[in-house]
Amino acid sequence: MPHIPVPKESPGTFGLFQFRPETAVPLLELCEVLLRADNALTRGEREMIAGYVSQGNSSEFCRDGHFTIAALQMEDGFDVVRAVREMPDEAPISAKMKALLRIAEKVRIGGRSVLGTDVDAARDAGATDVEIHDTVLIAAAFSMFNRYADGLDAVVPENPDFHDVVAQRVVDQGYSRMARMIAEPAPAAGASR
Amino acid sequence: MPHIPVPKESPGTFGLFQFRPETAVPLLELCEVLLRADNALTRGEREMIAGYVSQGNSSEFCRDGHFTIAALQMEDGFDVVRAVREMPDEAPISAKMKALLRIAEKVRIGGRSVLGTDVDAARDAGATDVEIHDTVLIAAAFSMFNRYADGLDAVVPENPDFHDVVAQRVVDQGYSRMARMIAEPAPAAGASR
Repeated sequence: MPHIPVPKESPGTFGLFQFRPETAVPLLELCEVLLRADNALTRGEREMIAGYVSQGNSSEFCRDGHFTIAALQMEDGFDVVRAVREMPDEAPISAKMKALLRIAEKVRIGGRSVLGTDVDAARDAGATDVEIHDTVLIAAAFSMFNRYADGLDAVVPENPDFHDVVAQRVVDQGYSRMARMIAEPAPAAGASR
Repeated sequence: MPHIPVPKESPGTFGLFQFRPETAVPLLELCEVLLRADNALTRGEREMIAGYVSQGNSSEFCRDGHFTIAALQMEDGFDVVRAVREMPDEAPISAKMKALLRIAEKVRIGGRSVLGTDVDAARDAGATDVEIHDTVLIAAAFSMFNRYADGLDAVVPENPDFHDVVAQRVVDQGYSRMARMIAEPAPAAGASR
């Protein structure tokens, strides 16, 4: 049971966003910029980093959500994600992505564990400064989101289709739209004042 | 040396904000809402949670910066901060703040380590749902900022007065203004196009 009263129908971070719209808006805008805005890394690759860090933190809600969003935005996405979840070093992803996932895992453990040699390996595999920056910040941001959801014991969805439905909505509409809907909820149908 | 090229005169997260203004804006807006907007917890108390989490993560830059910002916004602030740094359980802060710092430390270690009994203890000491939410999110956010600064090995300032100068500016002007300055830098004096 969540540590604070959140709407039952809104599992995970969604309930927390509704509980506190003031903080939801910058958090969702951060997701939009980091995971969807123009970038040399694809949207699928960036969501995969988010899912991978959440898996490392045993943060079930974020792991399932962001791996699904990743899969929907990559060719053969569900196969690729399954491989990354089970054996990332053998997965059918680029050498650059493997090097970036290694950096993300180190950031997850603690910022100081990232060594110059880790960054050099990513650069040798073709990663740019911005890609290295964004990988570190995505891994850091999900070190936050995982703690936010789990620290408040936010509900994990009971409906097994939840992540598929929400992931498709994120792919179609993005995080900014979610921020706007939370900041300015539509009036209920037939509501009178 | 930082892992990516950041301006030498901008230590810590400041250089990272300048390197990537797109992500700096939502990150600084998050700080404004979490650490400065109207709240039952004072600005000093919220900055103290940020400094305390950063100390636990051995993240020198964030620790010194946010403890200084906390001290400037509390009565006898530098004495209070010194006590919190050394022996939080004996520090001259409220029982509620002690219970919230215990939750923050657990969030830092990992979201799942926060137990219902930790939350009950904070509630028994007078904490509201929003205060519990905000404590968890501040601790989670600094688990991000610490990893962001240290994962990219952002420079720690050489000038010993750096934190005092910047902390006073944050107290006077806030984080939003910093976001606006980074998003739309003023033209250099005498610049021509």
